[in-house]
Amino acid sequence: MLNLEIPIFFSNPLAMLLVTVDRNDPEPVFRQISERIAEMIEGGVLAPGDRLPPTRVLAERSAVHRSTVVRAYEELRALGYVEGRPGSFTTVRRRSRWPRARAVDGQSPEDSAFSWDSTTMPVSEALRGHRALLPAPSTSISDPVDFESLSADPALAPSEDIRRCLNQIIRRSGGIALDYGDPAGWPPLREKVASRLSQHGVAVSPDEILITAGAQQALDLILRLLVKPGDAVAVEAPTYGKAHALFRLHQVTPLEVPMRPDGMDLDRLEEVLKRGKPRLVFTMPNFQNPTGITTDQPHRERLLDLSERFNVPLVEDGFEEEMKYFGQAVLPVKSMDDRGIVIYVGTFSKVVFPGLRIGWIAAAKGVIEPVTDLHHTTCLAGNTLAQAAAARFFEGSEYDLYLRRVHRAYRRRMKTMLEEMAAHIPAGCSWSEPEGGYSVWLSVPSCGVKEEELVRRCAEVGVLVSDGNRYFLRPQPTPHLRLSISKTDEHAIEEGCKRLGKVLEEMAVG
Amino acid sequence: MLNLEIPIFFSNPLAMLLVTVDRNDPEPVFRQISERIAEMIEGGVLAPGDRLPPTRVLAERSAVHRSTVVRAYEELRALGYVEGRPGSFTTVRRRSRWPRARAVDGQSPEDSAFSWDSTTMPVSEALRGHRALLPAPSTSISDPVDFESLSADPALAPSEDIRRCLNQIIRRSGGIALDYGDPAGWPPLREKVASRLSQHGVAVSPDEILITAGAQQALDLILRLLVKPGDAVAVEAPTYGKAHALFRLHQVTPLEVPMRPDGMDLDRLEEVLKRGKPRLVFTMPNFQNPTGITTDQPHRERLLDLSERFNVPLVEDGFEEEMKYFGQAVLPVKSMDDRGIVIYVGTFSKVVFPGLRIGWIAAAKGVIEPVTDLHHTTCLAGNTLAQAAAARFFEGSEYDLYLRRVHRAYRRRMKTMLEEMAAHIPAGCSWSEPEGGYSVWLSVPSCGVKEEELVRRCAEVGVLVSDGNRYFLRPQPTPHLRLSISKTDEHAIEEGCKRLGKVLEEMAVG
Repeated sequence: MLNLEIPIFFSNPLAMLLVTVDRNDPEPVFRQISERIAEMIEGGVLAPGDRLPPTRVLAERSAVHRSTVVRAYEELRALGYVEGRPGSFTTVRRRSRWPRARAVDGQSPEDSAFSWDSTTMPVSEALRGHRALLPAPSTSISDPVDFESLSADPALAPSEDIRRCLNQIIRRSGGIALDYGDPAGWPPLREKVASRLSQHGVAVSPDEILITAGAQQALDLILRLLVKPGDAVAVEAPTYGKAHALFRLHQVTPLEVPMRPDGMDLDRLEEVLKRGKPRLVFTMPNFQNPTGITTDQPHRERLLDLSERFNVPLVEDGFEEEMKYFGQAVLPVKSMDDRGIVIYVGTFSKVVFPGLRIGWIAAAKGVIEPVTDLHHTTCLAGNTLAQAAAARFFEGSEYDLYLRRVHRAYRRRMKTMLEEMAAHIPAGCSWSEPEGGYSVWLSVPSCGVKEEELVRRCAEVGVLVSDGNRYFLRPQPTPHLRLSISKTDEHAIEEGCKRLGKVLEEMAVG
Repeated sequence: MLNLEIPIFFSNPLAMLLVTVDRNDPEPVFRQISERIAEMIEGGVLAPGDRLPPTRVLAERSAVHRSTVVRAYEELRALGYVEGRPGSFTTVRRRSRWPRARAVDGQSPEDSAFSWDSTTMPVSEALRGHRALLPAPSTSISDPVDFESLSADPALAPSEDIRRCLNQIIRRSGGIALDYGDPAGWPPLREKVASRLSQHGVAVSPDEILITAGAQQALDLILRLLVKPGDAVAVEAPTYGKAHALFRLHQVTPLEVPMRPDGMDLDRLEEVLKRGKPRLVFTMPNFQNPTGITTDQPHRERLLDLSERFNVPLVEDGFEEEMKYFGQAVLPVKSMDDRGIVIYVGTFSKVVFPGLRIGWIAAAKGVIEPVTDLHHTTCLAGNTLAQAAAARFFEGSEYDLYLRRVHRAYRRRMKTMLEEMAAHIPAGCSWSEPEGGYSVWLSVPSCGVKEEELVRRCAEVGVLVSDGNRYFLRPQPTPHLRLSISKTDEHAIEEGCKRLGKVLEEMAVG
């Protein structure tokens, strides 16, 4: 190994040091020179104001080409170590800022830190406070019964099928599956979604579909398009907690329409439409979250009539359209939508794989076009690979086989749930009897016990339940719990109902 | 096969028809009964007001259990074919709405269609009009030279590595990789991002990172958090076109600060900060889009000083931080950010795989916490599988090998581009000489030719270029073109420069 040690003398006497250049080093020579000089500056050997030797002088002394030294000085200049233009002297710069320590050594001192508060972040207030965003209940019991989670059970997930689909997609499409996709969504997936929807009586073309990152993004995009701060929206009470979080974010007032055993109270909705001037009506006709209630055909007809009569768009959240496992599915409101007033939202998250983040909006082109522009402006496009893999999954028979398998599993779970509740929940309590989906809504008669206390007590004995107040705009006098079977098998369901029954009895409920 | 044909007599004489029940049919008997009756109603055999026989009578006649008939009637009721409560007569319902034809037979009649316009969609106006959202230029030449696309070349994508990572993730994590993830992002990926950032002198912990669906979503989330309609933001002119689209959407006024050959004009920025009261300063210090300009260390120090002095957050878009392939990288402004005033945005889209939609925000906890809440409220969480696969990709040496490979490729392309431009572009034009990234900014002297005409002429001879006006708030007097080498190899670059030079010469430019 040839190691040329080239002495470089700087104008400053302190800098009369050796600068080593190693021609066998893979680091280019100019970089070696610039790094040695940078080290001297950082180490204080060279002080601000010190002159570097002219490039010609240094090049001669170090037996390198002058352009190498020029390049080293240019780099030092870009990195902020030296200043001075070519032709004049190059001097060490008084550097005002240094990189922070590379190790994370904590926060900056309190007094100098920039203040991130509601003055600098106007929206931060709207993000705080709704219970839907509070953390889920926790417990010290090691293996609690989970009646809290609501999403497709990963234990039932078709992971192997998806793995195969991903492999096929990458093998066949290669880099294309990793490139930006169509802002409206991977075209074959839009075709598959249109074809699944047609099985539910909904006639839409692939051009009337936008693929989103799950139903939540779909709802957010719809609100961004349709509402202004200060507007009102008509919603079921109770409704999906994170819809309330979105309403707060968008600064709209939810006009709550009570849920009855057969769905939203349509007489009340009519009054709300007359007086409240909502910008939209938000509804979940199937296995409503949190009540588990499914509306019947006459209810859907009247709901659509009201929407049309008052010219107020209906946002139909069909998040569990394919999760009817008792009886025959009633067709979505969207299936009767001749006028294009219904915006339909769907998702695979509650059926197959939440983690792929695939949902969609199906609506008239008058909505799909601007909402696709909005999606393009805010996200460019969705996840090509996930969408392509999902499209492939829906191409073959895997999805139908999967649906049959999970319907069997959830039918058993729901049956067990309803039987065990009948056996263990004290009289006086009442609950919904869903025909599909995952959640049962338990109403506990007023008993002087607060809902928070009830949820806390359940967690103590190892049952995680969802606090009913997450689903209303304001806390309710009667306690409610949402109980979900999505991630809990029959054995755990039995155990959970026993524990829950005991808590309710101890609290002298019923 | 046993086929019992059971005659069922209805009260209506028209309905004295045979209803076939096949006990070998996998369809349950109750469903067979309900479907036959539904067919009679749809076919007009049973008319609105007609009575169905009492369940007891029909059960006896058809030799099935009464509960089977009760269930069939319940289903007909839910589906809207009949009405009447148990105990009273069940009669055929006058159904107000039928599902639309399953085939897509076009739109609803003009006069009855709901009107989706700026009254019903207040935001739709803000989505229209900015040139950044116009379609890319098109050409009839079969194999055009693409100087328009700006994203990592799919031909260089590490598809096989990603495929392997995906397989490992699904095999090891199974359903977990398909389930909802942490709203802040897959924790191992946040660790990898933090560790990559530390190589650029940025000291952040994984808790100070939010993984987003690309840099565009990151910018949108930041704007949602920091600005209100009517606010102003300071931006480079020209700047990333889709940032302008976002500003329009958020109804903020961009205060344009001209780009000079060494970056944003900081004297002008100082004036803007004094007078314009912007809520933030948006900057791209490396290979700025569209100009390709990289700022030096002194520029970055002064920019940070200004941000701190005026207490205005700096949004640093490091979209191509890892794409420096000439010389040594200058550290990001964020590396010097003691006070936590810099919000850093990064992405893999311009380096590895746009289609996985992975970007991030690195900032003080005071920002990361509310922006994570915002992400949770609007999207629940990101794509678990893509994030987990990316984390695995960054774990081994694949990423570093990949970076070296693409740096070599783009260094060659950029070198060719600059040489060919020098050879073919007429005198009088000038262009930037980027030290990395993909885009060269070409300024064409005023020549009486409009930019649109120039872009159109280029497309005609098979060169796709990006219209410079996409990057400004208002059309500029001097034409500019952004030329990107991201998806174009050396041979095509040579050909493209020849064609471009010819167009410019024909237009008597220079």
